[in-house]
Amino acid sequence: MQNPSLYLDTLIRELSRLPGIGGKSASRLAFHLLKMSDPEVERLIRAITDVKSNIMTCSICGGISDRDTCSICADEGRETGIVCVVEHAKDMLVIENTGRFSGMYHVLAGSISPLDGIGPEDLNIYSLQERCSGGVVKEVILAMSPTVDGDATALYLSSLLKPMGVVVTRIAHGLPVGSDLDYADSATIVKSIEERREMK
Amino acid sequence: MQNPSLYLDTLIRELSRLPGIGGKSASRLAFHLLKMSDPEVERLIRAITDVKSNIMTCSICGGISDRDTCSICADEGRETGIVCVVEHAKDMLVIENTGRFSGMYHVLAGSISPLDGIGPEDLNIYSLQERCSGGVVKEVILAMSPTVDGDATALYLSSLLKPMGVVVTRIAHGLPVGSDLDYADSATIVKSIEERREMK
Repeated sequence: MQNPSLYLDTLIRELSRLPGIGGKSASRLAFHLLKMSDPEVERLIRAITDVKSNIMTCSICGGISDRDTCSICADEGRETGIVCVVEHAKDMLVIENTGRFSGMYHVLAGSISPLDGIGPEDLNIYSLQERCSGGVVKEVILAMSPTVDGDATALYLSSLLKPMGVVVTRIAHGLPVGSDLDYADSATIVKSIEERREMK
Repeated sequence: MQNPSLYLDTLIRELSRLPGIGGKSASRLAFHLLKMSDPEVERLIRAITDVKSNIMTCSICGGISDRDTCSICADEGRETGIVCVVEHAKDMLVIENTGRFSGMYHVLAGSISPLDGIGPEDLNIYSLQERCSGGVVKEVILAMSPTVDGDATALYLSSLLKPMGVVVTRIAHGLPVGSDLDYADSATIVKSIEERREMK
C-alpha cells in the first residue's frame, strides 16, 4: 500500500484531525481541495487566517467579536433587561440562530468542574455580577447544558445572583439530559427558553 | 438573529461549501479552528497550499504525484505486467488502500459520456494504448465504476485493447461482501445471478 503523493497524504492526515472528519471524509475533502480553483482555496485560507488573527473577546459579554464590543452588545434594539448566560461562545450562536431571543448574552467560557480543577474564579463570572449590579438587568437566564457541570454552575450562579434582586431562571430540561447544546435542534432550544423556571 | 463576528460567519460559509459539510458541521469546524493553536492551523494551511502548488500528474499513469513519475510507477517491486485502469486518481487510492493489488495503475481522468460531451479523445487513453503496445503489459483490469458511463468506457477500451493481444478483464459486479440480499437493488441482484460462478 503506497500513497503516490506525500503532500496529499499529509493533507489527509491534517484534515482527519478535525472533529467529525474520519479517514474517508478527509480523503474526499483532500481531493476536493485539489480540484478547487486557486481563488476558491485562497478564499478558504483567508477565511481561516482572518478568524485566527482578527477575532477577539467582547469586553461586555465575553463572546467572540470582530471589535472591542460585539454587534449584539452594541445593538440598541435588544432587550438589555434580560441576560442569557451560556458556557461557550458557540452556544450563544446556537441560541441566536433560533431567531427567537432578543435579550443579551453572557459567555462564561466554561463551567464549574471540580474534577478538572475549574472553579468559579476561572470563569467569566465577576463581570456577570458587575452587569447585574447596575439595576438594568432584571432577569438572568441560565442556559448551561443540562450536564453535571452545567447544573452545578447554574446552582452556583443562582445563589450568587438572587441576593442581588435579579430573577434567575434556568432553561427547561426539554433538552435530553447529558446531551450537548451544540447538537440540539432549534425547536427544542426555543421550547427550553420559553419554559424556563425560576430557581428555587 | 445576528452573528457577532463577520469573520466567523465567512469561515462557516466557506467551510459549508466543502462536500459532506453541512451548516452545523461547518460551525463546529469553525469554532474548532478558532480554538486550535497557531502552529496547528499553520500546519493545516501549509498542507493545503502544498497540495495546491506541488502536486502534478504522473507522466506514466496519469495519477497524482509529487514528482514527474509517481512512487507506484517508479517502484521496481511491483508487477508491471498487470495494469488496473480507473476513472479518477482517488479510485487508485481506494484500490491501493486494500493492500491486495501489486500491479500498476492507469488513470483515465474521467469516463466516456456522450451526454456531457466527453469522448475517448478527452481521456488519458492514448498513453494507455502506448503502454500496452510495448509487450510488457499482459493484462488490463478495467476498474471503472459500474455505471452507464463506466460500462461504456469499459466496452470501448476492451474493443481497443483486445486486438493488441492483451487480456482484458472487468472487476466483478455483484453483492457487496457482508451485505444483506434483502437490501440489495434488483439491478445488482440480476448482475450477481448473471455473473454467478461455479463453486470449487
